[in-house]
Amino acid sequence: MKLVVQKFGGSSVANPERMRRCAERAVAAKQAGQHVVIVVSAMGDSTDDLLELAAKFTKSPSRREIDQLLSTGEQVSSALMAMTLHGMGYEAVSLTGAQSGIKTEDASFTRARIASIDDTRLRRELDAGRIPVVTGFQGVTNDGETATLGRGGSDTTAVALAAALKADVCEIYTDVDGIFTSDPRLVPTAVRRDRFTYDEMLEAASLGARVMHPRAVELGKKYNVPIKVLHSQIDGLGTLIAGEDPSMESRVVACVALKNDLGRIMIRDLPNRAGVQSAIFEPVAAANVSVDDIIQEETTPGHITLTFTLDRADITEIKPVVEIAAKRIWAEAAGSSARETDAGVIVRTGYCKVSAIGAGMRSHSGVASTMFKTLAQQGVRIENITTSEIAISCILEEADGPKALKAVHDAFGLGASETR
Amino acid sequence: MKLVVQKFGGSSVANPERMRRCAERAVAAKQAGQHVVIVVSAMGDSTDDLLELAAKFTKSPSRREIDQLLSTGEQVSSALMAMTLHGMGYEAVSLTGAQSGIKTEDASFTRARIASIDDTRLRRELDAGRIPVVTGFQGVTNDGETATLGRGGSDTTAVALAAALKADVCEIYTDVDGIFTSDPRLVPTAVRRDRFTYDEMLEAASLGARVMHPRAVELGKKYNVPIKVLHSQIDGLGTLIAGEDPSMESRVVACVALKNDLGRIMIRDLPNRAGVQSAIFEPVAAANVSVDDIIQEETTPGHITLTFTLDRADITEIKPVVEIAAKRIWAEAAGSSARETDAGVIVRTGYCKVSAIGAGMRSHSGVASTMFKTLAQQGVRIENITTSEIAISCILEEADGPKALKAVHDAFGLGASETR
Repeated sequence: MKLVVQKFGGSSVANPERMRRCAERAVAAKQAGQHVVIVVSAMGDSTDDLLELAAKFTKSPSRREIDQLLSTGEQVSSALMAMTLHGMGYEAVSLTGAQSGIKTEDASFTRARIASIDDTRLRRELDAGRIPVVTGFQGVTNDGETATLGRGGSDTTAVALAAALKADVCEIYTDVDGIFTSDPRLVPTAVRRDRFTYDEMLEAASLGARVMHPRAVELGKKYNVPIKVLHSQIDGLGTLIAGEDPSMESRVVACVALKNDLGRIMIRDLPNRAGVQSAIFEPVAAANVSVDDIIQEETTPGHITLTFTLDRADITEIKPVVEIAAKRIWAEAAGSSARETDAGVIVRTGYCKVSAIGAGMRSHSGVASTMFKTLAQQGVRIENITTSEIAISCILEEADGPKALKAVHDAFGLGASETR
Repeated sequence: MKLVVQKFGGSSVANPERMRRCAERAVAAKQAGQHVVIVVSAMGDSTDDLLELAAKFTKSPSRREIDQLLSTGEQVSSALMAMTLHGMGYEAVSLTGAQSGIKTEDASFTRARIASIDDTRLRRELDAGRIPVVTGFQGVTNDGETATLGRGGSDTTAVALAAALKADVCEIYTDVDGIFTSDPRLVPTAVRRDRFTYDEMLEAASLGARVMHPRAVELGKKYNVPIKVLHSQIDGLGTLIAGEDPSMESRVVACVALKNDLGRIMIRDLPNRAGVQSAIFEPVAAANVSVDDIIQEETTPGHITLTFTLDRADITEIKPVVEIAAKRIWAEAAGSSARETDAGVIVRTGYCKVSAIGAGMRSHSGVASTMFKTLAQQGVRIENITTSEIAISCILEEADGPKALKAVHDAFGLGASETR
């Protein structure tokens, strides 16, 4: 018997009408002779509401208690979804993370990782003909402590359950009807793609496309779970995220993405000696800030400038960290030299990143040159370039982002009129 | 080390300021060198809010799902109470029914009874110097199902925990500063009593005094847990509910209670044969309706009238049940006799019951005659009289209730000016 895991996000279950439409999806699968497991997020903004409530009681809530509190949001929506299914004449049973056998690693409240899934209870409910409605975003430690999974938690729950139950597909229902060649709000010619590879989705997520959390995609890749992204309220074909298949070879670029709000920190006149990079980036990593791209250039013999981009929001926190580290290096260097320097930490914001992503890039050349030529034609200056195996990214002035995105999208033949 | 269980009701924890005052009670006990276990109800009206929410999703929610839903109310308040204590610099940990080891009997959702308490986790938290904040009103079945305890659930949780942990006292914090000799809204001279016996409280609860649910008092009596009723927001001496002590002998009447909204069903001309009473009251009990008082009088030789009082709200449901049972009896009787009858089921509403309650009544005479004389002086007609070992009750016209209550209260010397 086929088995499908269906995950419904917070906006998809925000009210009785919307929840009913989600329930109809489950019923349709059930009527088609499949086993169905539902995973739900907390309704609408209820997680934020709970956090706001907590803020009224204490300024710095403990992470354990935040989890005790937040986990109720999914409990509410799972109970209501089970009730909705009952009202439609179907047997269903809401299950908390603990009841579903979702075990998390210990002592990692608010950002727990799933350690294992004991599917005994879920199997029992499925065998009894019921639709289990599992609370997303939560699990239980060996000590019986409730732990939430952090960002992307409900998607992760769904994919993890699909992996544990060897589901045929994990359907992620959301408020878009699939994944597009670019953000349709920015690129009017963007079209839905039938299929992405796991790697393309992972690159797209990290490069600014907000559809699925990379964590869930990674898990899907690891256990080879086919993931389908669909609209919860409108029928459609959706987008399948899966491994590569032979027919995909002809496609070079799958999508283009824009990431805004980048800043750049430049540290000038560092001595080019072993360990200078780690002396800068270790404290940055310790502050839990992710750095986007790093460029190193030699300015005068034996001296380098280190430049890196990062989310603008992180700059306030990280600038003093970098300055302290740099000053220590300069002070040491000053002891051994008396030359004049232009040493300094220079911060600038107002950057964006346009990326082209596609698994086919591995075996195709010419992607980079098409991108550079397109940007040149648009009169856009490229501040920096970075590449991965299946993506190429250009850092640009933020004002150039939308124009560049559109041009690159259409240059790769992704536009509605050119391809499907 | 002394141990106190403190239970805070929904209105006591309805907002951050009120919750903080509750937390201060726990902190005071802790600072006095005691172990403290807190039990909380859901905040304010949140249980009703959840039920209203469920009604938007289905007309007849399953009891299991109602419990999955409602149990979140106490989870929220316990997490927020733990956060409040953290904010005050105290170590605290919120615990669900399952985490607290509160096991309920199986398959009894929405009205589960506590089967046992495994205090391992609670002991561990206490030994570590933490204040456990337990969700009231809920437990877990052997199958890991969440079950709520029904009416009076949080009081019951508190007393059960106090029994399991052999607490020195179970403090029930509410919005009154103790238990009074009568309802102060009806009897201006009513005063707080320092002490009631379990039996007095049980009688008072069933006779109309709404302070503590009898279920929790029964549990306290069974395990001999001293229960103290206190105001959560105002300092005061409160009222201790405990077993009888010698000094209480001098007090005959502890309190007087008024129960309104009673109705009366009279079944006339039943043959006085064995089994006729059970033929009437078995179907009434099967409909889960409690009957207050029953009177039987012989009208003509061999024929009786059965009269009983009950809550007015139950009349609509129970009248047809009584009629069917009576008609069957009359039909059988008609076969053996051809006499004229005034058979019929007559319903009347508009009654109340005034009761005097006191453990000292057992060894004191004259209580009934004082009560009758007082009512006569007020010109109040007594419709019916019932007595138990420690209570005497008169059924009156509802309009006479308040006047009768005041007069009886003062006649037994309970008034503020006469006694303390």
